[in-house]
Amino acid sequence: MSERFVVVGGDAAGLSAAAKARRADPDREVVVLERGAWVSFGACGIPYYVKGEIPELEDLLVTSPEKLVGKYGIDLRRHHEVTAVDPEAGRVTVDGGGERYELAYDDLLLATGGHGATPDAPGGDLDGVFTVRSLDEGRALREYLTPGAGTRPGVPTPPTDRFHEHLGEVEAVAVVGANKIGLELVEAFDARGLAVHVVDDGAHVFERGPLTLPPFGPAAAGIVEERLRERGVELHLDSRVERFVGADGAVTAVETGDERIPVDAVLVDEGVEPNAELAAGAGIELGATGAIATDAYGRTSAPDVYAAGDCAEKHHHLLDEPVHLPLGLAANRGGRAVGATVAGTPTRVGPVVGTVVMKVFDLEVACSGVLDAETAREAGFDPVTETVTTISRAHYYPGGSRIVVEMAAGADDGRLLGAGLVGEEGCAHRVNAVATALHTDLTVGELADLDFGYSPPFGPVWDPVLTAAKAVDGDLG
Amino acid sequence: MSERFVVVGGDAAGLSAAAKARRADPDREVVVLERGAWVSFGACGIPYYVKGEIPELEDLLVTSPEKLVGKYGIDLRRHHEVTAVDPEAGRVTVDGGGERYELAYDDLLLATGGHGATPDAPGGDLDGVFTVRSLDEGRALREYLTPGAGTRPGVPTPPTDRFHEHLGEVEAVAVVGANKIGLELVEAFDARGLAVHVVDDGAHVFERGPLTLPPFGPAAAGIVEERLRERGVELHLDSRVERFVGADGAVTAVETGDERIPVDAVLVDEGVEPNAELAAGAGIELGATGAIATDAYGRTSAPDVYAAGDCAEKHHHLLDEPVHLPLGLAANRGGRAVGATVAGTPTRVGPVVGTVVMKVFDLEVACSGVLDAETAREAGFDPVTETVTTISRAHYYPGGSRIVVEMAAGADDGRLLGAGLVGEEGCAHRVNAVATALHTDLTVGELADLDFGYSPPFGPVWDPVLTAAKAVDGDLG
Repeated sequence: MSERFVVVGGDAAGLSAAAKARRADPDREVVVLERGAWVSFGACGIPYYVKGEIPELEDLLVTSPEKLVGKYGIDLRRHHEVTAVDPEAGRVTVDGGGERYELAYDDLLLATGGHGATPDAPGGDLDGVFTVRSLDEGRALREYLTPGAGTRPGVPTPPTDRFHEHLGEVEAVAVVGANKIGLELVEAFDARGLAVHVVDDGAHVFERGPLTLPPFGPAAAGIVEERLRERGVELHLDSRVERFVGADGAVTAVETGDERIPVDAVLVDEGVEPNAELAAGAGIELGATGAIATDAYGRTSAPDVYAAGDCAEKHHHLLDEPVHLPLGLAANRGGRAVGATVAGTPTRVGPVVGTVVMKVFDLEVACSGVLDAETAREAGFDPVTETVTTISRAHYYPGGSRIVVEMAAGADDGRLLGAGLVGEEGCAHRVNAVATALHTDLTVGELADLDFGYSPPFGPVWDPVLTAAKAVDGDLG
Repeated sequence: MSERFVVVGGDAAGLSAAAKARRADPDREVVVLERGAWVSFGACGIPYYVKGEIPELEDLLVTSPEKLVGKYGIDLRRHHEVTAVDPEAGRVTVDGGGERYELAYDDLLLATGGHGATPDAPGGDLDGVFTVRSLDEGRALREYLTPGAGTRPGVPTPPTDRFHEHLGEVEAVAVVGANKIGLELVEAFDARGLAVHVVDDGAHVFERGPLTLPPFGPAAAGIVEERLRERGVELHLDSRVERFVGADGAVTAVETGDERIPVDAVLVDEGVEPNAELAAGAGIELGATGAIATDAYGRTSAPDVYAAGDCAEKHHHLLDEPVHLPLGLAANRGGRAVGATVAGTPTRVGPVVGTVVMKVFDLEVACSGVLDAETAREAGFDPVTETVTTISRAHYYPGGSRIVVEMAAGADDGRLLGAGLVGEEGCAHRVNAVATALHTDLTVGELADLDFGYSPPFGPVWDPVLTAAKAVDGDLG
C-alpha cells in the first residue's frame, strides 16, 4: 500500500520532484498530470529555437515521456488537466483520457508554472501579438515569422489561439518590454534579418524588471543599450504602448504616446505571471506576489500540498521575504527538494539570491542580489554602490575586452548586497562567486580578500569581482 | 618626521604594499629597494612572451618606474640590493648606486620573491637548461630559441648567467616537471614548431605539484595528458632525469633511467623556492616549508618586519597550517594587507584555499582546495570524492563541450574540501565559486543548493559545480 504522490505539471519543478521521489523511494507511486502535450521542456531555449539556431522544438526536451515512464517508473498522464483540488478530501479532479475522474493523493505538488503577462493595451489579442513562455507559443511565433518552419510530420502540434496562417512577409517586429526574454528574442529577430524595435516604459532597459526579476544595474543597462543600437535595434524608451493597431485581424503597428511604429509582429515581455488559479480555487493561500505562498519546505497552507516552480513564491535570502522569481534552476531546486521531502527526507527549498544570466548579442550580462537602490532601501539596507571598469584578460594577453562590474554593499556593515557584470566574456560564470558570497553573508571586505584563481588568458590578477569589492570596501567608513 | 617604510623587492607583493601604504597614508615615506632592473612585472605572462604571443617583455609590466615615483610618490631604487637586515637596530644594509649604505626603517617588508628550483641531476648548469621565474630568465629562454628576438635598443637587458649565444637551430625541447609553468611552456614551445618532450617522475601530470601547489586531481590530469598526446607532445612519465648531457657546454640530451632524449633546450619546472636567505641571515624564523614564517598580519618573528609574496608562507584555510603557495594574487593580497597595516589600519593577510587556474592548449584547468586524498587525510579529513562529466552549455545549444568536475568532501560532516574542473570552456571562472564556498566552510549539500545563474549559452540548468556537489552529497550517509 504505497502512498501516492500526485504532481500537477510536467515541467522543470514537477518532473524534478517526480524523479527525485522515485529515486529516493522506488516503491513510491508517482503520478504526473500534465494538461498539455509537452513534458520536461527547456523553456529557456525558446529564443534560440525562434532564432533558428536550434532546428526543432523537440531538441529542447531534456528527457522523453518514454524514459520518464520506463526508466523512472512515473505514471505520466499527458493531456490530463487537473481542474480542482480538494485538500480536505485529499484528491484532485482530472479531465483526461476522454473522461473526468477523481484521484486521491497522499502528497500533492502543484507545479503549474507561469505564463507571459498579456498586454493591457487595446489590440493585444490581434494575431501576431505574442507572449512566449511555452513551447507551443515558441512554435507559433517561429511559424509566424517563417510559415511552415515549425511543423514536422508526426510531431504533436496543438493549436494555439495565437496561431495565424500569416500570408505576407514579416519584416519588422516590436519587442514590448526590454527584459530578459524580450532582449533574448531581439537577437533571434535580428538574426532573421528583421528590423527590431524595442519599446519600454522605463528610461533604460532592465529598469522595470518583470515582477521581482532584479535589474542588472544601470551600468549594464547602458552598455546593453549601446550594443543594441550598434546592431541597428531601435530603442523606444520612456514609451508605453497605448494601442496595438491591426488590419484583417493581424497586428500592423504599435502606438505609443509619441509615435506609431509599423510592425508585422509583436513580442510582449511584461513578465511572467504564476498559474495560481488552481490553488486559489482550492482555498490555498497566495502570497502578496500573486504566487502560491510556501514555507521553507515548499508546503502550502493546505496539508500535504506543496508548490514549486514558477507558480510558487521563493524566499529571497537578502530581502528576507517571499518573491516571485520564475527561473529554471529555482524550479528544479524546489521540485527536487519537495521530491526528497515526500520520499521521507525532509529537505528545505533553499532560498534564492536572484542570480540571472543572459546573452544579448555578444554580451554576457549577469547579476546576483539586489542592485536596485530603492529595493535595497525598502528592505532596510543603506546601499553604497561602485562601478568599476576592468578587463577580461591580463592587460598584455591578446583578445581581452572590457568588463564592467557594478557592486553594492550595506553602508553600516559592509555586507555584500549584489553585483552585476557585463562584457563580451568572463561574466556569466563569475557571477556564481557573487551568488555564493551572498548566500554566506560575506562583506565586501571579506569578498575582496578571497583566494580566487588567476591566469593571464582568463583575467587580470585581481579578478573583476575582487576589484569591485575593493572599490566598494574603500568607500565604507 | 614621517615614519619610513622600507620594502625589499619591487614585484607584486612589494609594490602592492608600497602603493597601498602611500594611498592610505600620503605622508608616509616609502622606499622600495629592488636589486634588479625590473619592477612591477607580470611573471605569469612569461610563457606567452616565450610563445611570441606577447611581443615584448616590457608589455608584461603593470606600471612604470616613472609612475611609481611620480604618481605614487615612492622612493624607488633599482639596482639596489639589500645584503643584510639588522632587526635590533632597525636598519638594512644596501649595495647600490656604487656604494654600500645603511638605511633605517620603522617598518620593513621582505618581498624578496622566489626562484625556480634548479635540478639536482648532473649537467643542470649546462647552457640551454633553464628555469623561468624572472623576466630575465624568460628573455634568455626566448633568445635561446630564436636568437636576437628578445633584444630591443634602449631596453635594459641585464646579463643572466644562463644566457647563451646559441648558434644552431633549436628543434626539440624537454620540459622537466609536468607542473603549472612547465605545461604552460609546452604550449609556447609547440607554437614555435618544436618537438616537445615532457619528463616527470610522477605516474601522471600534476601528480607531484611543485612544493605545496595542489594537484588538479586525477580526472583533470588524464584529460590533460590525452590533449598533450593529441598535440604530439611526448610524455615520459614515471621518468626521472638522471643526467643532462652536453656538448661544447650546451645541453644536447636528457637521460632518464630508461632512455636518452636528444634535445636542444630544457625547461626545468621543479617548483618555486622562496628567496629566504636574507631573512635567515637576519635570524628571522623560517617555517617548515622553507619560506619565511608569518602571522595573520604578515609579521615575521622580528619586530616591525613583515614578509609577503613568494618568499613568505601563507595560511591554508582548509589544512589549517602554513603552506608555500607562490601565486600572483596571493602575493598582491599579502602585500596590500601589509601596506594597509603599516599605514595604520591593521589588516589581516587573508588565508589561501589553493585556487589555481591554467591553460593547456585549448583546455581550461582549474582547482581550489584539497583534492589529493593523502593530503586531506594528513590534515585530518576523511575525503569522499566524485567525478562527474557534464556539459558547458545547455544540451541543445550549439558549440558546447565536455566539462569534467572532480569534487571532494569530508565523509563525516560533508564539508567541501576541494574541486577541480577541466574542459574547453567554462572552467576558469567557475572555480571561484568553489573558492568562495571553501572560504565559507560550506558543505556540499549547501553548495548544491545555491542559486547560481543559468542561461543556455553558458551552461546546463544545474551548473557543473552544483552537479558535482549533488553527486558527492549523494554519497554521504
